[in-house]
Amino acid sequence: MPVDVIVIYGPPADPAAFDRHYEDVHVPLAKAMPNLIGFEITRGPVAAQNGPGAHLIARLRYPSRPDLEAALSSPEGVAAVDDLGNFADGGVTLYTAEVVDA
Amino acid sequence: MPVDVIVIYGPPADPAAFDRHYEDVHVPLAKAMPNLIGFEITRGPVAAQNGPGAHLIARLRYPSRPDLEAALSSPEGVAAVDDLGNFADGGVTLYTAEVVDA
Repeated sequence: MPVDVIVIYGPPADPAAFDRHYEDVHVPLAKAMPNLIGFEITRGPVAAQNGPGAHLIARLRYPSRPDLEAALSSPEGVAAVDDLGNFADGGVTLYTAEVVDA
Repeated sequence: MPVDVIVIYGPPADPAAFDRHYEDVHVPLAKAMPNLIGFEITRGPVAAQNGPGAHLIARLRYPSRPDLEAALSSPEGVAAVDDLGNFADGGVTLYTAEVVDA
């Protein structure tokens, strides 16, 4: 069963700097992770209802939980996670779960 | 550009009752909404890092923002939103945004 990681970035101090770093540095790092079979991101404003605000939401998909674990423990995965500290100053929440069509 | 609605359900008081109502009542109501082109849900536990816990996360996709607005104001959309009060007692956070491939 595919596994999704949903990454919710809180509003950063400098949205333009966030967007620049995200596009130029973080997306390439994330795309370098092994086993990644889907990577979608929000574009433009994210409207929030009944919850904390979000600046950007990403969804990364892996074929299975072992594939995700291998990706996270790979050098590319470590680099991508380490990079969060370089730009995600508005906080970052991650949700990980298996996903099916409803 | 497609628009996603991400629905994050907090932990309910009675998870088994939530799951039953969600599958038997809410999913059919949501699927009846016009313009829906994608509907994915988590299956099994949702692991949360740096954020509030979640019992289930759904993602509904519409072709465009006007399509989403038409869906929400349709009788089927009103019924699906009204139904949240019948089972989502752990809280529900919604995020709405346009989505692109990274």
